[in-house]
Amino acid sequence: MIGALTLSMQTWKTLSRETVLKRGKFLRVEDHTVQLPDGRVIEQWPWVITPDFINVVAVTEAGEFLCFRQVKYAVTGEALATVGGYLEPGEEPLAAAQRELLEETGYEATQWIALGQYRVDANRGAGTAHFFLALHAHYVAERNADDLEEQHLLLLTRTEVEAALDADQFKALPWAAIVALALRRL
Amino acid sequence: MIGALTLSMQTWKTLSRETVLKRGKFLRVEDHTVQLPDGRVIEQWPWVITPDFINVVAVTEAGEFLCFRQVKYAVTGEALATVGGYLEPGEEPLAAAQRELLEETGYEATQWIALGQYRVDANRGAGTAHFFLALHAHYVAERNADDLEEQHLLLLTRTEVEAALDADQFKALPWAAIVALALRRL
Repeated sequence: MIGALTLSMQTWKTLSRETVLKRGKFLRVEDHTVQLPDGRVIEQWPWVITPDFINVVAVTEAGEFLCFRQVKYAVTGEALATVGGYLEPGEEPLAAAQRELLEETGYEATQWIALGQYRVDANRGAGTAHFFLALHAHYVAERNADDLEEQHLLLLTRTEVEAALDADQFKALPWAAIVALALRRL
Repeated sequence: MIGALTLSMQTWKTLSRETVLKRGKFLRVEDHTVQLPDGRVIEQWPWVITPDFINVVAVTEAGEFLCFRQVKYAVTGEALATVGGYLEPGEEPLAAAQRELLEETGYEATQWIALGQYRVDANRGAGTAHFFLALHAHYVAERNADDLEEQHLLLLTRTEVEAALDADQFKALPWAAIVALALRRL
């Protein structure tokens, strides 16, 4: 049944698009005029453009997971977080993942496993998440994070990570998603 | 270490907010003026308001997973999807999950397990995802979906769902996230 995932279903057509809001490199909103397969036309379908981003679950030789205790503007209270950040213009997702791991933790990893790429909002876009599992992570340099938020690096055991995931302590969708996906490969 | 997740870190303050774009009930964008703990003030921090939504992984008595083969405007090609939809104004997440399961599949379930709530964008908001696992799902009525997209209901085995997840066929972040989280409880 899964094998039937070929493109036999008709997709929607974008007839026109117009930028209606721009906020630097972090947000642009377009109105799309969209045509459905049955011919119906929808005006002002909102389309959200935010930068693509990466998240990384990094695990040391000793089996410790690199996580953060962190506050974020859109998250209530403290949360556990993974390494993550936006792609620079023209940057490949893997390169961004390796850069962010080094900047945020001072660690490098020798084995990188792609955990997929996922559209954030299936209706309106809102960027794509690229997930990576980084194995054999080891400390090489001082952290050099330029994030605005306070964050504290934690080395957690697998048991601690699983307990935190099941207790909803990874409070943002990308963090919970990548942790759950990474645990399947470990 | 996890136990230290009390609110000792300082959060950001919203000094003011102004609506700068509105598109019906699906999107509103605000500019926030935000103050960091160190006193710095950021102007025009974009804040995205989209409706909260639910996703459901529903499993029948026979262990079949209710999924869709589906196209969505922001997803390339066909994808596997879970039951999902927006909360109506004032609607509780569980009620929305039960309503969407019935509307989209014609199934009801007798056991509901909350799988957490997750902020979509830790920086800009973009709504909250509420995830549920529905067990003992059974067919009770004709489907009555009002979605604009073509979708085909599939009954998949756990093995098929796991293979599809690992092959990145759940192409949107909420779908991959809830499937990975649900599999941990099954």
